[in-house]
Amino acid sequence: MTHFEDEKNKLKETLLAMASHAESAVARAIRALVERDDSLAAQVDEDDNILDQFEIEVDDLAIHLLAKAPLATDLRSITVAMKISQNLERVGDEAVSIARRVVELNREPQLKPYVDLPRMAAMSLEMLRDAITAFIERQPEKARAVVPRDQAVDELNRQLYRELSSFMIERPATISRCLGLMAVSKRLERIADHATNIAEEIVYLYEARDIRHTGLKANEIENPAR
Amino acid sequence: MTHFEDEKNKLKETLLAMASHAESAVARAIRALVERDDSLAAQVDEDDNILDQFEIEVDDLAIHLLAKAPLATDLRSITVAMKISQNLERVGDEAVSIARRVVELNREPQLKPYVDLPRMAAMSLEMLRDAITAFIERQPEKARAVVPRDQAVDELNRQLYRELSSFMIERPATISRCLGLMAVSKRLERIADHATNIAEEIVYLYEARDIRHTGLKANEIENPAR
Repeated sequence: MTHFEDEKNKLKETLLAMASHAESAVARAIRALVERDDSLAAQVDEDDNILDQFEIEVDDLAIHLLAKAPLATDLRSITVAMKISQNLERVGDEAVSIARRVVELNREPQLKPYVDLPRMAAMSLEMLRDAITAFIERQPEKARAVVPRDQAVDELNRQLYRELSSFMIERPATISRCLGLMAVSKRLERIADHATNIAEEIVYLYEARDIRHTGLKANEIENPAR
Repeated sequence: MTHFEDEKNKLKETLLAMASHAESAVARAIRALVERDDSLAAQVDEDDNILDQFEIEVDDLAIHLLAKAPLATDLRSITVAMKISQNLERVGDEAVSIARRVVELNREPQLKPYVDLPRMAAMSLEMLRDAITAFIERQPEKARAVVPRDQAVDELNRQLYRELSSFMIERPATISRCLGLMAVSKRLERIADHATNIAEEIVYLYEARDIRHTGLKANEIENPAR
């Protein structure tokens, strides 16, 4: 294995570690909601700088690799890694946003058992995981299959929004709690958006090859500068 | 001027055109709110694919340039251009999201004259404009000055949120309108976040040079691969 291949693997591993951290942040924020655990929520907030550090690390590895990339397709795949990292950093921001809402929600009695939010979280995180796997394992079909799943999460978010807004009209005393739950739902819906963005980048990464270089295998095209 | 310089300028021009389109989308969405103009709101929604096309164009130009970049600093600056483009595309999504809320809001009588939202929009768009200018004109100080302005927009958003949630408790009949206005405010606050992200990328772009290559002028460092 060449040194360049070693470094590409290092980039992938870093991205995987970053993805697993982002996923764990969201999962912990939702666990903090369900278990009404303020200290877990606070931990999610504190840990966010780890994702910021990961983003810097991915950027540095990527810039280093870009300078050595022998093939045009490598350039594109490295820049996709940077975009994925930017999306994962945003997922971390959503987790922090959820965690802060959780602390507010925990100050008041629980409105009803949380069923839909953990379900939305599971769906969004599974989309994220599949999108990352599609990139690491070069499976564009897997990425393509992620995109339409966004609609189900959007629909759950809309449904929860409708339910909660009717509920606040009937019982104005619950308004602040309903607003908090709406905000958590919206953040989960955004996480599914980030997963969809990642998936679309991966589809485009592989499709762009097909569309632009018809008749040639992508890995046979030399980077024009070298 | 070399061919490479020509192409770098083309990348900058495309990014500027994209930024101006994103800005106009937000400005039109807010005008549609203030003037209660449904057809203007619908136009913002329809025009969103223009920003998606811009993102693809910036990516293609950037990938092409990456293959030729003679200096390590060029690589970093080109990838920052791609990140800016991704943020601008998100700004366009926020504009669409505002435009859709506007159509809903226009179905009901106006709650009160819109003063804070146009002000927030002006602040966020000015941050965005300054961040883009900082990149195009290589002015890291200008980018650095954008970052703290995010707090003022956050504070306006929080203030509006508090006002609107008290208002809904007092007058439950206004709940759906208050929710719509809260959502618009949140989108504007996110636009300021995107501007801040862009500004931080630019600060890091120039700081990274300073930190990593102390004692050398950045433009004297050859890309190690060439």
